[in-house]
Amino acid sequence: MTSLAAPTPRHRVVVIGSGFGGLFGTQALKRADVDITLVARTTHHLFQPLLYQVATGILSEGEIAPATREVLRRQANATTILGNVTDIDLEAHTVTSENLGRRLVTPYDSLLVAAGAGQSYFGNDHFATYAPGMKDIDDALELRGLILGCFEQAELAALRGDKHEVARLLCFVVVGAGPTGVEMAGQITELANRTLRKDFRAIDPTQAKVILVDAAPQVLPAFGDRLGVIALKRLEQMGVEVQLGGKVVDVDATGIEIQDLGDPSGYVRRIESICKVWAAGVQASPLGATLSEQSGAGLDRAGRIQVLPDLTLPGHPEVFVVGDMIALDNLPGVAQVAIQGSRFAAKQIARRLAGQPGEEAFAYFDKGSMATISRFSAVASVGRFRFGGFIAWLMWLGVHLVYIIGFKSRVTTLLHWAVSFLGRGRAERTITEQQVFARRAIERLGDEHRPSLPDVGS
Amino acid sequence: MTSLAAPTPRHRVVVIGSGFGGLFGTQALKRADVDITLVARTTHHLFQPLLYQVATGILSEGEIAPATREVLRRQANATTILGNVTDIDLEAHTVTSENLGRRLVTPYDSLLVAAGAGQSYFGNDHFATYAPGMKDIDDALELRGLILGCFEQAELAALRGDKHEVARLLCFVVVGAGPTGVEMAGQITELANRTLRKDFRAIDPTQAKVILVDAAPQVLPAFGDRLGVIALKRLEQMGVEVQLGGKVVDVDATGIEIQDLGDPSGYVRRIESICKVWAAGVQASPLGATLSEQSGAGLDRAGRIQVLPDLTLPGHPEVFVVGDMIALDNLPGVAQVAIQGSRFAAKQIARRLAGQPGEEAFAYFDKGSMATISRFSAVASVGRFRFGGFIAWLMWLGVHLVYIIGFKSRVTTLLHWAVSFLGRGRAERTITEQQVFARRAIERLGDEHRPSLPDVGS
Repeated sequence: MTSLAAPTPRHRVVVIGSGFGGLFGTQALKRADVDITLVARTTHHLFQPLLYQVATGILSEGEIAPATREVLRRQANATTILGNVTDIDLEAHTVTSENLGRRLVTPYDSLLVAAGAGQSYFGNDHFATYAPGMKDIDDALELRGLILGCFEQAELAALRGDKHEVARLLCFVVVGAGPTGVEMAGQITELANRTLRKDFRAIDPTQAKVILVDAAPQVLPAFGDRLGVIALKRLEQMGVEVQLGGKVVDVDATGIEIQDLGDPSGYVRRIESICKVWAAGVQASPLGATLSEQSGAGLDRAGRIQVLPDLTLPGHPEVFVVGDMIALDNLPGVAQVAIQGSRFAAKQIARRLAGQPGEEAFAYFDKGSMATISRFSAVASVGRFRFGGFIAWLMWLGVHLVYIIGFKSRVTTLLHWAVSFLGRGRAERTITEQQVFARRAIERLGDEHRPSLPDVGS
Repeated sequence: MTSLAAPTPRHRVVVIGSGFGGLFGTQALKRADVDITLVARTTHHLFQPLLYQVATGILSEGEIAPATREVLRRQANATTILGNVTDIDLEAHTVTSENLGRRLVTPYDSLLVAAGAGQSYFGNDHFATYAPGMKDIDDALELRGLILGCFEQAELAALRGDKHEVARLLCFVVVGAGPTGVEMAGQITELANRTLRKDFRAIDPTQAKVILVDAAPQVLPAFGDRLGVIALKRLEQMGVEVQLGGKVVDVDATGIEIQDLGDPSGYVRRIESICKVWAAGVQASPLGATLSEQSGAGLDRAGRIQVLPDLTLPGHPEVFVVGDMIALDNLPGVAQVAIQGSRFAAKQIARRLAGQPGEEAFAYFDKGSMATISRFSAVASVGRFRFGGFIAWLMWLGVHLVYIIGFKSRVTTLLHWAVSFLGRGRAERTITEQQVFARRAIERLGDEHRPSLPDVGS
């Protein structure tokens, strides 16, 4: 006789986000006796640290953004669904997501919230219109179109004899001297000086001006004084104009206005520039506020939520929050914090299911951090050691090759890097009408017309 | 004493278009004593025969669309400018192009018009809203989002238990059984049956239905009966449902309506389908009409202009028209016609400058044609020989590797092909919000908001 009893339902884990936290957390539960549902706004996992290479034509979007469900194909206990999470109900233990106007309510027994952070314009959201951020593939492809487009327009302006227009089209301003800003400034400079050097007839791309602005008194503050000085020197050698202690007070279509913090007169100066890149600040996912309201956990100014030392929400041991969304022990907003945090959470869930006691606190192991400045030159900080130059760049190369997900990407990535580091070419310079058009269209139509991705026309 | 006399101005050649005709024509003038200005609407040369591989996630846009000015970097006598040609004045010998609302008038001594063709909906332009064409990179990236998006939406619909919605999301209709349509139908089938096979949990992608519709009585009519039968058999083996003798009478958001030409009752049947691909017809560039009005040369129904046997416009020996824009001797709309025609035109220009007589007529040498049906299977027609199957596919592989422009592309393309032909992966599945959103936005805003590419925000 076969048993007619229903099988015991498995422990349900819902994971929000397909970034480093969401993906690595899901993978860490591969052997656990659970059913995982990963809900994400995009269909891909994004290797954000290389986004600047998509923006500057070195890599294709596929190389840094593999399909999440492809990465999780062999993990039978994981289901991936596309949706924008609009609500979390901590009482009912449900996550509500939306896609194309249709809602899906997914119940959970354990929840891993890894929704990350978006760009912050520090309350000046209208800056976004004129200075795209660097947080997702759309940003990167739009910036690719904008950067390369400025050179195209400058060629036309030069043929018309409009020198003023040429100057502001060839003046690139990058706001924010953290790793992303330094990398963007370095890459735009290399693009102008190497890749595009001989591509134009009426303009000289090497005359392009790249300005890196930050309110802080040094570049790469997180890397300490010494590496900051090394990075500054290297940037200046390359021709990047570094303006420290400068606060951006306004951004519009044709320029950016800056107040020098050291100047007591409060004078605001203007830089005429069409292409502005915003790499200055982050704001945690609004789901932080949703969790804060229901649990009473505090939020800091960047919208990050104060979790307990074991990464759970106060009063909700079944809810873990990881990565860029949390305010804990001054942990930085880097991939390793998200990866290690989500693996810790996965282990805690597995332990509880096995009836074992969990650990009391998450301990972050700082593997170090690195930023590239140009080809063959980087800075790296590992433990008490500081590296600058070629050795740091080799470390960067190795670490990034290992971490990029999926074999296919690694081989073509290596090739694209060979092309751009050893040669002067860039394989991915293609820009499309839709990339450059969509943002402005969304603005004109209003945000309510922004579709859930992907919009299939129904 | 140095001479104070101005140098004799060089013969000015203007080339319109950066497709096969425009690019190869420009390159053929490399050693000529001329100043060439190439005006094009996009910043890239498009290898259109592989567009279907971008649409189905095998190749990145950079691999089939290198920057035109990068290809022409070392050709000192060529200037590339971005602009949409709005007028040609045959009397004044000028070409007017527009970009971001600014006009540029370029004078010419010789003109090479190679503006190609766009998609034709045979007078039903509203079909375009629901059935994207396959003519440019934007089309391909939009279709990538649409095709992969349908599988994503189907997974969600299955979780909601909506079987009707799942069925129409997994029903793909390709209109047009020429090479592009056959290739798209084959690739969507392989995507569903191989690449996505194990990627979903609630749907079975191998249950997707791919329907290839054409009003003609055979597939690949240009390849002759025998290859048409071979291609049909292979498509049906793969699971593609081929519906011949079917005329599309309407297309809307959720379906397509077809009248079977063999059915005397005129009954119109409906196929419920979200993703429709239009690969059915072409319409020559509207510049054909501009040239026709001024020169009196005839236009055929597809907007192609009747040029003289030496590819010049009647009464205007200085104006050459090549490629998809011309109606001459039933020449097909293939890359080789454009390449050979533009090389012929270049030679004529060089001969005249050297005071030599030109040739009287362009003679097209048919190198043959080929179409892939699936990995390892193609059809090829070379001279009196007809090939089907693996040998034809190897020919396809060789020819396409040789023709893709630029070394970098060739190596990564080979790798991406290895991944997708030998394995089951596809490296370029990334889709973006902007790709899927732009078309609808342009519709809502009206075409006058469509920007010149690239729009730099000024």
